[in-house]
Amino acid sequence: MKRIRQSFAVPFTYDVHFTSHIFDSENTLFVDLIREAAHEQQMAKCFFVIDKGVEEAHPQLIGEIGTYCSMHSEILISVAEPLVVTGGEEVKNEPEWVDKIIEAVNVFGIDRHSYIIGIGGGAVLDMVGYAASVAHRGVRHIRIPTTVLSQNDSGVGVKNGVNYCGKKNFVGNFAPPFAVINDKEFLLTLDDRDWRSGISEALKVALIKDLKFFEEIEADAPALARREMAPMESLIYRCAEMHMDHIATGDPFEMGSSRPLDFGHWSAHKLEQLTDYRIRHGEAVAIGISLDVLYSSLLGWISQEEALRVLRVFETLGFDLYVPELTQYLDDPSHPQSILSGLNEFREHLGGRLTIMLLKDLGKGVEVHEMDATKVAQAVSLLLNYTQKALI
Amino acid sequence: MKRIRQSFAVPFTYDVHFTSHIFDSENTLFVDLIREAAHEQQMAKCFFVIDKGVEEAHPQLIGEIGTYCSMHSEILISVAEPLVVTGGEEVKNEPEWVDKIIEAVNVFGIDRHSYIIGIGGGAVLDMVGYAASVAHRGVRHIRIPTTVLSQNDSGVGVKNGVNYCGKKNFVGNFAPPFAVINDKEFLLTLDDRDWRSGISEALKVALIKDLKFFEEIEADAPALARREMAPMESLIYRCAEMHMDHIATGDPFEMGSSRPLDFGHWSAHKLEQLTDYRIRHGEAVAIGISLDVLYSSLLGWISQEEALRVLRVFETLGFDLYVPELTQYLDDPSHPQSILSGLNEFREHLGGRLTIMLLKDLGKGVEVHEMDATKVAQAVSLLLNYTQKALI
Repeated sequence: MKRIRQSFAVPFTYDVHFTSHIFDSENTLFVDLIREAAHEQQMAKCFFVIDKGVEEAHPQLIGEIGTYCSMHSEILISVAEPLVVTGGEEVKNEPEWVDKIIEAVNVFGIDRHSYIIGIGGGAVLDMVGYAASVAHRGVRHIRIPTTVLSQNDSGVGVKNGVNYCGKKNFVGNFAPPFAVINDKEFLLTLDDRDWRSGISEALKVALIKDLKFFEEIEADAPALARREMAPMESLIYRCAEMHMDHIATGDPFEMGSSRPLDFGHWSAHKLEQLTDYRIRHGEAVAIGISLDVLYSSLLGWISQEEALRVLRVFETLGFDLYVPELTQYLDDPSHPQSILSGLNEFREHLGGRLTIMLLKDLGKGVEVHEMDATKVAQAVSLLLNYTQKALI
Repeated sequence: MKRIRQSFAVPFTYDVHFTSHIFDSENTLFVDLIREAAHEQQMAKCFFVIDKGVEEAHPQLIGEIGTYCSMHSEILISVAEPLVVTGGEEVKNEPEWVDKIIEAVNVFGIDRHSYIIGIGGGAVLDMVGYAASVAHRGVRHIRIPTTVLSQNDSGVGVKNGVNYCGKKNFVGNFAPPFAVINDKEFLLTLDDRDWRSGISEALKVALIKDLKFFEEIEADAPALARREMAPMESLIYRCAEMHMDHIATGDPFEMGSSRPLDFGHWSAHKLEQLTDYRIRHGEAVAIGISLDVLYSSLLGWISQEEALRVLRVFETLGFDLYVPELTQYLDDPSHPQSILSGLNEFREHLGGRLTIMLLKDLGKGVEVHEMDATKVAQAVSLLLNYTQKALI
């Protein structure tokens, strides 16, 4: 039997830019990016998709984009009025948004070298990135993340997706963006929950990789809670940098079974689903991290004091670390309403062996391949006690 | 303004195997592939999707697959009866097939390390590959191509997709398979049109890259027309090898504007659409190549005698090189019913500049960035004359 072996590597390069007032007439970053990639005199078609929450908080934005495109009409063509889409996780549950973007690609003759620009939180960017990645097998997409979470984590990575039958990111793919533009002005209008939420992912990456970064966030926690911009800018930059470095030096398209950046996420994904997305991703991750930090302490890998130190940072930041859905069906690990069933769903989504990140030390993650249901239940009790102050 | 540059390369490796009687109890190729990739004792879930045409021509196939999985039940789990889907291009026009596969992924708990196996012609494999590539952001997929075209060209590459609003491959992505298995037994039951169709792609790659290969096909044409297996096996192997080499050494995910392997394809895609898929892809490509060969001769790049030599090979193989849709609206290049409008659609699908491959010599392609509508019309006339024997 004969065989031909195929082997190649596909290179990807993109930049994450940090700016402010991206569509101000003085700011040429956006048009410069497009101009650099253009063939000779060729015009670039642009189609903007905007998170409804962003549009409401920045009512002048659509007008600014129109003016900006007109100012640079020698290269930019805005093919239509921006499409305003539902904000938050809901946008990933409604298949019509992906269909609308694909329809726009068809109607406006958007080709593979045109641009679909998503402006919004992580959920909107996931949906827009997915639609852009499958239309014509991939139209260039630019992400303009507007939340802390999307600026430091989801928006700077290579994953996109939508939900299916309530399962998060069940349909999606890996598709690096053409560019990412982080504009800090969008952070000013976030509500407190969205401002806070993204900090969970910074704590996550710090806890598994960088004690010093954890200590910086710990020290800055009161200022972050007061919504000071300087520590937030530095947190976002460092978190994005670590997240991107992890992707570049790891397994960008996740062909293995391991997903080290998903510390605290097995229960977080499940909690989002169990609460019908009443809690946001970052809020769920704060609970998920707290749980796995306590679990690590139950294994004796970190001390209880170290675990409490992590919980205290979340508390200072204003996170609520308890939801009633945590305790239901804890005696029935396979019950779909039990957070424990999240372990198998997590394994199933990634495939292969169950692989969960825990902490060997603050700043040092290690992977395990099994989780003990009784110890998870104990960690839940400890968390409940902590939130009721019994532990302190 | 600060910036973080992201840069990485994603490696892909897969094998194309040549075998016969793939699900015969004696043939361990399939189970060996799965076993090599398995973690320790882990079972591999398999979900088979079969082209209706293949199922009808091989009524024992589903039973054989069942027996094969039972024989190897220590590793293979066939999670459900194989899904039998419409054969031919129609399967790419019916969105419910993709939905059914995604539903199966959900219902049967198919994870990223499980297998979706497509058995069929190129259209079925394109659809199955697309569904597999987006479920869980990519489940492993194995292609078992059953036609000449899919064994030597589409099935061994990295593209998949479905149609949208009659536009071919409007939605899809680039997703290398886990493995490809070419089983020559499937070729025996092809009807003459399918046997013949795939030879166009071999002529295509030969004409732009390898005169010697063209001359082999030319010499073998009578035997191929008589359906002799030995020259067909050698043609498939060489064509697959050249196709794969082209992908590996070129631009696998087509980020540039050029698509050198699409010689003869700008009009072929349009003709498939204009004829409502009455003609098959390979038949359209035979016409498309003939047209671009004649166009190359009108430019003086090859001689008329060389162009006729190509047309004669197609004729010996039994191709019909004329369809009435060729001549409609030739005076109105932007009319959607004119093949000339295929030029812009071709450009739009790929993005960027129009880039068309023509011949500088037999075995040597060169790219151009414009096509002259009058000369295309002349090439159509020459083709019409040839098929009416006026040229000879």
